Order: sequence, then C-alpha cells, then structure tokens
Amino acid sequence: MAIDYKRELEIAAKSMILVHEPDTLIRMIVRLMVQKVKVIHAGILLHDEQRNSYILRVSRGPTGTKVPSEFARMDYNNPLIRFFKERIDKELLGDGYVTLREAKHFLRKTTISAEEKDIVKAVLHQMEILDATVCIPSYFQNELLGVLFMGKKKNGRELQRKELDFLVALAHDVAMAIRNARLFKQLQTELYKRKQLFINTTIALAAAIEAKDHYTLGHTQRVTDLSLKIGKRLIKLQEERLSENFLEQLHMAALLHDVGKIGIPESILNKEGPLTNEEKKRMQLHPVIGANILQPIKELEEAILGVKYHHERYDGKGYPEGLNNGKIPLIAAIIAVADTFDAMTTDRQYRAAISKKEAIQEIQRVSGQQLHPQIVSIFLQLSKEGKV
Amino acid sequence: MAIDYKRELEIAAKSMILVHEPDTLIRMIVRLMVQKVKVIHAGILLHDEQRNSYILRVSRGPTGTKVPSEFARMDYNNPLIRFFKERIDKELLGDGYVTLREAKHFLRKTTISAEEKDIVKAVLHQMEILDATVCIPSYFQNELLGVLFMGKKKNGRELQRKELDFLVALAHDVAMAIRNARLFKQLQTELYKRKQLFINTTIALAAAIEAKDHYTLGHTQRVTDLSLKIGKRLIKLQEERLSENFLEQLHMAALLHDVGKIGIPESILNKEGPLTNEEKKRMQLHPVIGANILQPIKELEEAILGVKYHHERYDGKGYPEGLNNGKIPLIAAIIAVADTFDAMTTDRQYRAAISKKEAIQEIQRVSGQQLHPQIVSIFLQLSKEGKV
Repeated sequence: MAIDYKRELEIAAKSMILVHEPDTLIRMIVRLMVQKVKVIHAGILLHDEQRNSYILRVSRGPTGTKVPSEFARMDYNNPLIRFFKERIDKELLGDGYVTLREAKHFLRKTTISAEEKDIVKAVLHQMEILDATVCIPSYFQNELLGVLFMGKKKNGRELQRKELDFLVALAHDVAMAIRNARLFKQLQTELYKRKQLFINTTIALAAAIEAKDHYTLGHTQRVTDLSLKIGKRLIKLQEERLSENFLEQLHMAALLHDVGKIGIPESILNKEGPLTNEEKKRMQLHPVIGANILQPIKELEEAILGVKYHHERYDGKGYPEGLNNGKIPLIAAIIAVADTFDAMTTDRQYRAAISKKEAIQEIQRVSGQQLHPQIVSIFLQLSKEGKV
Repeated sequence: MAIDYKRELEIAAKSMILVHEPDTLIRMIVRLMVQKVKVIHAGILLHDEQRNSYILRVSRGPTGTKVPSEFARMDYNNPLIRFFKERIDKELLGDGYVTLREAKHFLRKTTISAEEKDIVKAVLHQMEILDATVCIPSYFQNELLGVLFMGKKKNGRELQRKELDFLVALAHDVAMAIRNARLFKQLQTELYKRKQLFINTTIALAAAIEAKDHYTLGHTQRVTDLSLKIGKRLIKLQEERLSENFLEQLHMAALLHDVGKIGIPESILNKEGPLTNEEKKRMQLHPVIGANILQPIKELEEAILGVKYHHERYDGKGYPEGLNNGKIPLIAAIIAVADTFDAMTTDRQYRAAISKKEAIQEIQRVSGQQLHPQIVSIFLQLSKEGKV
C-alpha cells in the first residue's frame, strides 16, 4: 500500500509536539524516517551549543547503530556543516537538501568553478563517511539546528520526489519540536534546581538553629532521613490517603521540627543540671513556637502540623494539646518515632545512649502508648530489613 | 490572489507552537481565521475545567468584539456543546464541523426522526445566538477542548470546501497548540510558586533568627526592602555589569545578612551594658559565621559575598577582611548602606534613633570613607524621590 506522506507528516508533527523529552523526540524522529521511507539506516546530527559542534545523537539501522556515535562529531568547519550553516547549498543546489546523485551530477557540470567543485567534493566525502544518500538541514529561525540523513532504501531504489518532500517538511517540523522540547526541558531543569535550592537552604538554616543546642549535632539530619524512609514505606503500603506532596511536606517538617528551639533561652537549652518545672514548661513550648514561625507560609500547612504535634503521644499524654490516637496527624506521628529513636541512640545531658537493638525494643514497647502503632509497625519492618 | 491554504496551515501551526501564553495563542488563532478566510467575525469557545463549561474566550470582528464574552458561557448541557462533546455530529453529519446550510438541509430531510430534528434545531438556535455560519470542534485525545466558530464571509459567499478543510485542520492544530501552551503555563506557574515558597520560608527563618536579638525587630525586612530598591536602580542605570540573577541574590543576601548572629551567645547579643573588647570581637564574627552557614549552597554564591562583606568599609577599615573600595562586592556595599541607614533610624542599646533627615546627611558624610560612593549616590537619589 502506498504511503500518504502528507497525512504521515501531519500525524508525525502532532506526536512530536507532545514529546517534551528531547532525547525521546530525536529517537522518535529517526524511527519515523526508517519506517516510513523504508531505508537501511537514518540519523540526526544535532547542534550542541556547549561543545560548538554538531553531534550524531541517534543513528538507527536494522542491526542497531549504523554509524558509531562517537565517530560523528562535526565542528563548524566541517564541510557538510558549513555547506548548510552558511547556506551554500541554497546557492549551488537550491533544493533544501543534498542527495548523493545530485551532488555527483553537479560535479559533472562544466559550468562550475574549481572552488565550487571542491566544496561539493568535500560534502560528498562527508556523506560517504555517514553512508548517507541524502542529507536534509533543519533550521530554526535561520540557525542550523541539525542535519537529518539517511542511507539507501531497502528496495535499492532511488528516493522519490514525494519522499524527499516529506523529509524536507519533516525537517522543518523537527526544528520546531526540538526547540519546544528544549524549552520544556529548560523549565523542568529550573524547577528541579529550585526545589534543590529550597531544600538546601532549609537544611543550612535548620543546621544553624540546631547548633544552638549543644547536644543535638546531626540530630535533624538523622531524624529527617529516618522520617523519609518511614514516609516512603507508608506511601508504598497505600493504607492511608495521603496528600499529593506528602513526602515533600514530611521532608520540610522533619528538617524544621525543632526550629522552635530558637525561641528557647540558651540558659535552658544548654543547662548542665536538671531543668526546673518552670524550665521544662518553657522547653515544651518549642513545637508551638516552631509552628508559629512557619505559620505565614501557607504552602507548608501540612508540614506545620508535623512541627506542632511531634511531641504528642498516642495515649493523649503528650504536648502541646494532648491529642490522642486518631487526632494526631500521621506526619507528626512519623517524626515522633524518628525523633524518639534518635534521642535514645545518642548521648544526652543526663543519660548515655542505649544500643540500637535496645532502642528498637523500647520503641516496640511504647507502641500504642507513646507512639502510633501503625508507624511503629513500619519502623519495625524497616529495622528488620536493616534499613534503620 | 488565491490563498494557498495548505501553506497557510503549515505556517500557522509552526507559529502556534512557539506561543506559550494561552491567551496570546487564542487571540492569534482568531485573528488568523478572520484574516485568512475573510469573515466578518470569528471566536473560540474554550473548555474551562474549573467552571465546568465552555467559555467564549475571544471574539473578533471588524468593529472589535462581536459577541459579548460574558454572554457566551455554555455548560455541558448546552445543545451545541453536547452535539460535539458526545460526537452526535459524527453520527448525523459526519464532516467534523457543522454549517448553517448543512443543518438547514438536514432538517428538510424526510428520513430523520423527530428526536434528531430536535437536536439539530437546538444546535441551529445556538449558532444563531453566536451569529455563526460554521462551528468546528477541536479535540485533544477525544476530549472536546473547544469550538471554533465564524460568521459570514465579507463577500457574502458561502464557505468553500477548501476553506472548511483548512478550518478543520486548523482546529486540530489548535488543540495541540493550546495543550502545549497550557503545559508551559503550568510549569511556569509552578516555578513561580516555588520561588515564592523559597523566599517566604527564608523570610520566616530569618525572622526567627532575628528575634534572638531584642533590638532588631523588623530590621531584616527594612534592610531587604531598601537594598532591593537600591539594587533595582543600579540595574536600571546599567553602569555595572551585574550577574543575571543579581536581584535574587541580593534579596537572599539582605534577608540573611545577619543570619550569623545565631552563632553569637545571647549573653553578648542582648547584653545591657557596653561590650568588652573580647565580646566585640566575638560579635564581629557574625558575617563570617553567616557565610559559613550558607557555604554549602552553591547557588547562593553571590549572596554569600553579601553576607560575608556587609561590614567592610570603603576605606578598608571594616571587617572581617579589611577589603577596600574596588574589592568590596557591590552586593555587600548595597547591604552596608541599607544596614547603616536602618541602624541609625532605630533605637539601639546605647543610643536613641536619629531622624531620617539626619541619617541621610550622615550617610552622605561617610560616603567614600565608610560607604561605597556609587551606592550612596543611588541612595541619595532615592531619598530625594521620597522612596527611602
């Protein structure tokens, strides 16, 4: 059955626009060339701004890669690149592409100059290296974005006019789609960088605040790590309906769970002897102080619950509000387990650390009293797997 | 001259893909319809998920808006919307669009049921409200994304087949382009939200740290506001080569310029009497402590310079390094001016605030000694304009 190239092109253009991953897009285009025009192999040389060259990004043939990728990196002085980049092709051939046959035909002309002959000869040589029968440039706003090329047709025949037209039109759409995909990629990369910057800044500031409390070096980092492990497992188990960005909220909550300690006087925070009742009460304000600090940030609504309630107990004997079982947000219950475990396994003012094994037993013992049984159960699972 | 619709469509599709602002895109499409098919007016009813309806987003005619936008909001039960949404059009007409003429022709048929007649009559009525001679649905993955419609041709003739084909093909591309633009918009919105979250979290934590120092309520906010005003003016003057994200770095630096105070004991920070030399030295460590806290965040490289050097003096007599004139980063010189001005105009431990006017004179006096003359000059400009 004959292929309706106009229709194929429309379909191709539409699919391309929906692919926002440049590498996937390029592979898709090459696959399209090989399948629709039925050639032995095809490839794309794509402009790489950082490296000031055109690089063979994909090459596809019946037995995988036809031209080894490392092999084909062409700089701006490469005759084939210059031919298209400086629009010499337009002057000499004028079709918007170059075929082997056409180039050979050109060289037989008697009306051309020696210089013109040399240019086309050099182009021909590059095409032979690529084993290409046709090369089609792809421009975006007059910049050469890349060069599509393909080998012989499987049936051994010459490329037909309508096939070449299809390829030229495809090359146009390719430029558009690649630019679109790159813009998407840029935005996504920036978004990712933003997230990292946000987390890293929070880590730095949380660490600075933690440093006020002499006994908690590395505490925040360890509580955060363990909380995230528990949170990930909780999501995996799918027993609870969690918010869409639960893990991110948990991450922030764990990093900032003790941020309120900044509001506690150093004289209490680092007191050598035991705290008076008055001092204890003051100390127990830190979850609420922390929640107040973060209150203006409405995007951290759930994280704030984690900060505020990480000292609540399952039996209702915790602080600040004495919430019990069902009323304690899971985000706070997770931090409570991680916080308790870390407190037991590190030296504090008035007692030495206990061993990991003892601490795990203790966590199990207080499940349902101090700590949330569902979260303890996940913690015990993780500890059995050696992940605590 | 006859219009080559195939070519027009290619050009249109390509331009559309490059427009990532949904509103601009929609206006562009309607303009295209009016110009290319030469109709009196055209419009787009666009799906609005939040409002569960299709809303007239743009309507363009020779004298501006033809159909008032508020007028045309169609919910899912609107006969025209149902006709396309449930693909009834395909069953009854099968062209991928509906014209007035065709609908009227259909109603004259004797082979149709009363129910079918009612459906098409209701559609006709909707078209009359819109003053439309043709409506073309636009689908994305079988979802009705919108309906394109247009009025009579300016020359009074019927729409030709090739014009209708052009419009149907355009409607396809429109769906693609709108989806693409919406995805872009989503990403950009998320990026914006991220930036806000980042700034807001930094503000909250900086405020918490500031609260340790009893004498500096609101200081950070005021220094940040003034620093940003100076920074914006500096960019406008274009006298200096500034980094691409200078203002963002300045924002962070100003917010965090005193973050190192978290490392100074409260007994020194809030001492009632004068500081001993030893205590002064300790206090003067805060810029370096601040820089150390932020050091791990490589994206804040420039902001860190602002934090580290905001107590350097133009004459080299500042701390921590005694840098002079040319060597002090502008970002730090800006914060120094804002910081000095705010310190003078607010009460501190051992002296009352001076008036704004006196403080401005003092800033002018120490220009070239304590403060960077270029930045002072911008500060004085701003104060003349009443912006300080």
